[in-house]
Amino acid sequence: MVEQILGRRVRGRRGGGRSADARRGAGQALAQTPWMLPRNPDAPTEPLSEEGVQAIHDGAMRVLEEIGIEFLNAEAKSILRRAGCTVSPGSDNVRLDRGFVMEQVAKAPSEFTITPRNPARRVTVGGDAMLFVNVSSPPNCSDLDRGRRCGDRESFRDLIKLSQYFNCIHLCGGYPVEPLDIHPSVRHLDCLYDKLLLCDKVVHAYSLGAERVEDVMEMVRIAGGLSHEEFDAAPRMYTNINSSSPLKHDHPMLDGAMRLARRGQPVFVTPFTLSGAMAPVTLAGAVTQQTAEALAAIALLQSVNPGTPVVYGSFTSNVDMKSGAPAFGTPEYMRATQMSGQMARFYGLPMRASNACAANCPDSQSAWESAFSLWACVSSKANVVYHAAGWLEGGLCASYEKFVMDCETLQQIMHYMRPVTTTPDDIALEAIREVGPSGHFFGASHTQSRYAEAFYSPFLSDWSNFESWQERGSVSTPARANRICKRILAEFEPPALDPAIEEELGAFVARRKREGGAPTDF
Amino acid sequence: MVEQILGRRVRGRRGGGRSADARRGAGQALAQTPWMLPRNPDAPTEPLSEEGVQAIHDGAMRVLEEIGIEFLNAEAKSILRRAGCTVSPGSDNVRLDRGFVMEQVAKAPSEFTITPRNPARRVTVGGDAMLFVNVSSPPNCSDLDRGRRCGDRESFRDLIKLSQYFNCIHLCGGYPVEPLDIHPSVRHLDCLYDKLLLCDKVVHAYSLGAERVEDVMEMVRIAGGLSHEEFDAAPRMYTNINSSSPLKHDHPMLDGAMRLARRGQPVFVTPFTLSGAMAPVTLAGAVTQQTAEALAAIALLQSVNPGTPVVYGSFTSNVDMKSGAPAFGTPEYMRATQMSGQMARFYGLPMRASNACAANCPDSQSAWESAFSLWACVSSKANVVYHAAGWLEGGLCASYEKFVMDCETLQQIMHYMRPVTTTPDDIALEAIREVGPSGHFFGASHTQSRYAEAFYSPFLSDWSNFESWQERGSVSTPARANRICKRILAEFEPPALDPAIEEELGAFVARRKREGGAPTDF
Repeated sequence: MVEQILGRRVRGRRGGGRSADARRGAGQALAQTPWMLPRNPDAPTEPLSEEGVQAIHDGAMRVLEEIGIEFLNAEAKSILRRAGCTVSPGSDNVRLDRGFVMEQVAKAPSEFTITPRNPARRVTVGGDAMLFVNVSSPPNCSDLDRGRRCGDRESFRDLIKLSQYFNCIHLCGGYPVEPLDIHPSVRHLDCLYDKLLLCDKVVHAYSLGAERVEDVMEMVRIAGGLSHEEFDAAPRMYTNINSSSPLKHDHPMLDGAMRLARRGQPVFVTPFTLSGAMAPVTLAGAVTQQTAEALAAIALLQSVNPGTPVVYGSFTSNVDMKSGAPAFGTPEYMRATQMSGQMARFYGLPMRASNACAANCPDSQSAWESAFSLWACVSSKANVVYHAAGWLEGGLCASYEKFVMDCETLQQIMHYMRPVTTTPDDIALEAIREVGPSGHFFGASHTQSRYAEAFYSPFLSDWSNFESWQERGSVSTPARANRICKRILAEFEPPALDPAIEEELGAFVARRKREGGAPTDF
Repeated sequence: MVEQILGRRVRGRRGGGRSADARRGAGQALAQTPWMLPRNPDAPTEPLSEEGVQAIHDGAMRVLEEIGIEFLNAEAKSILRRAGCTVSPGSDNVRLDRGFVMEQVAKAPSEFTITPRNPARRVTVGGDAMLFVNVSSPPNCSDLDRGRRCGDRESFRDLIKLSQYFNCIHLCGGYPVEPLDIHPSVRHLDCLYDKLLLCDKVVHAYSLGAERVEDVMEMVRIAGGLSHEEFDAAPRMYTNINSSSPLKHDHPMLDGAMRLARRGQPVFVTPFTLSGAMAPVTLAGAVTQQTAEALAAIALLQSVNPGTPVVYGSFTSNVDMKSGAPAFGTPEYMRATQMSGQMARFYGLPMRASNACAANCPDSQSAWESAFSLWACVSSKANVVYHAAGWLEGGLCASYEKFVMDCETLQQIMHYMRPVTTTPDDIALEAIREVGPSGHFFGASHTQSRYAEAFYSPFLSDWSNFESWQERGSVSTPARANRICKRILAEFEPPALDPAIEEELGAFVARRKREGGAPTDF
């Protein structure tokens, strides 16, 4: 089965049957693809020969052995020293032998599941699976009505609602926008409270200090109605850490990653290796450095807890060599992503990439950059597509309209992954005979019995002719997305949650706020 | 070599050195990728198993054997009858035996060249080659200044100038917009005169009656300064014919195709098999019918002149089953194109597809639909990408701004096709060592010696940050494309042409106009 329909539809029964649009389900703002976990049936595109893969692997091993990685974390250094790595005295530099690294990497599973508070939203990471994560971490957000602004809690909630609403979003990653109106010491408490109430999909913890990580793990445990043992027994959430390229892992990221690893929770390791800036100007060099940085952290985590689920994250793109500005959805981004897919498969690790773009508004540039990024994800067989919906400005802004636009393209990619079949019924010789040279296929019984499910049916694309489009006001795609977005937010109803759990979460947040939340001194 | 730099740059020396933009060449409106013939290094994406290919082949053969194709052309029927095919008495239906069809198809070359009046613009069709053709045949055109309007000669010339200007456009196909202000009886004379003066790339003849086809062949011969024997000795131009799906080839298309075949000129055969309308609602059924229609014409042309260069054209997409409107850049379009690539390789024929979209303006929908179409062309290993720049509204409108936008993405695809290398210099171990954990790569000598050529440099994409973009007026992508387009048209200079040839072309057009041009009764 290429498609595995796992769960119920998003709850949202208010106003059932009101809609004039027969394609919409009861109370749903639009007819969307049901929740499912797409599987990518295509062979990957592989720009590297076997020798090329080996050359990058050897380069990464030599970086780890000869140059080393800085681990700005005493505990991490001590673990690696005990494991036989060379920690330079009075320095954070750790050199890792390739034998050790490969032994540790081999302990990581090639595939694992994550089960959120709603078990119907369980996801599989690895293999042919392809998962989409909402936009994560921009400081700004925008919509056509209010323009671009700093993130706040209201916008945060709106974007979480979109993340929950769209079935093609499988994981609710980092904050879809930073709610800057909440004090950083307690932001994680309010944000996770909102997330866990508004969304029943897999959530994530930022690795930004011990308290934040522990609080989020505890809230996810409470939301799932789990004992501590049950929480530890299987992946329930995840974190994503970035290296401080070149060649550095900072303290809070390592601390958070090790805390999750100890409890068997997955860690995505995503170096931020922009070619020409924080990494070599050659793609092979940038992917070599990315690989070294990723494997260094992965080796540490496997030393902490063998078998910890990890993901090899690719974020290699290029910069504009005139301005230093990062670029995304470029030919270089595509090739680096495909090369990263080859490296991930070489190491037997699941792989993460992103739906990234550099555009400043949800116009045509944003669309082609995102489409190029997404087809790079497909052709590299990325298992997790971060920032799959809503990202603009190289990650500095979450756009409501872009979110909706991206979901249209994500649904199309899911539809693209359905199997192509060639049974006699598909070949349709009898239909061709029946229609003959003077007819058309609209009325053929072969068409009539299949048309409802035959093709992808869009919710945003306008396929009408120019005259009809003009009569309806020549509404551009972002403006149509804006209308759809408002309808979704107006009709949104949160997923079911046991009131006792809601109460327990609220009490936890209140207690932790009384205690002062998390320190904000880094 | 993945890239073969064949020719000189587009002529255009006026105002050399004036530009403040160092990236621009002398007198060129923008810095663009040099003329080159890209080769697609990737393995194709193949949704069909070997059995699937065989099932479609067998289906197509059964359509030809059991159902037959209507050839609305007495000469074609007579040729096929003499070749042993079954022509039903008193009907246009011809049934073709698979042995005959496969024998004829095997005579077609898998690769051939076309040499236009400027031999430096010679192109290779087939193999790993990928060529881009301008938008062809819309009745309307649009730009942001004048809006949407019927095509006229001025707009026709503008779009020919864009086709000549952009190095990423390799062939000048059909009229980029129909000049409806020129009488149909003489339109081909004025259009080809303009095309051959404003453009030195491969041109095309519409198969719309004997006179038009013969006139265009004669004008191409004159423009190339060729004897009749020289013209016949190698491909100098081409035609594209569409079947009248389902299962029909009409008179003028067959007549024109046979006239070109007799003189050794290439014919692209492109059935118009919209799944659910003129072809089965199943993709396998639509591609089966497309294959039967294409091979029927190809078998005829090989019977007329064995070895005639032909192209298997794919235009299978789907319709919106609610409105019947054609859709493009859909998941179905992508898969049908990839399946068509498999069939073309099965028959050893070069393959054509298109950069198509259904959007009504050059907004984000147009961009993602075009990007999906283009990546379908890449992943299917299409040799010729029709409508590569400028197409909107399912082919009913040629957009100046979309033309410029598309050229940005075509250039990126050409850049994407450059080889990825993994020499020790590419792996960059010494650069990584030199920069270390606290530096950056901007200043590294490894970067400095490579940065100018390392990455694709856009002419249209805006990668600046939001504040800079806003300061410059928040100019959207279509508006930036509009400015670039005007600059190109203002600075355009036609390619060199011997004044004696220009005079001979003018005299030919004048004579043919005096004679009344071509009949307009079909």
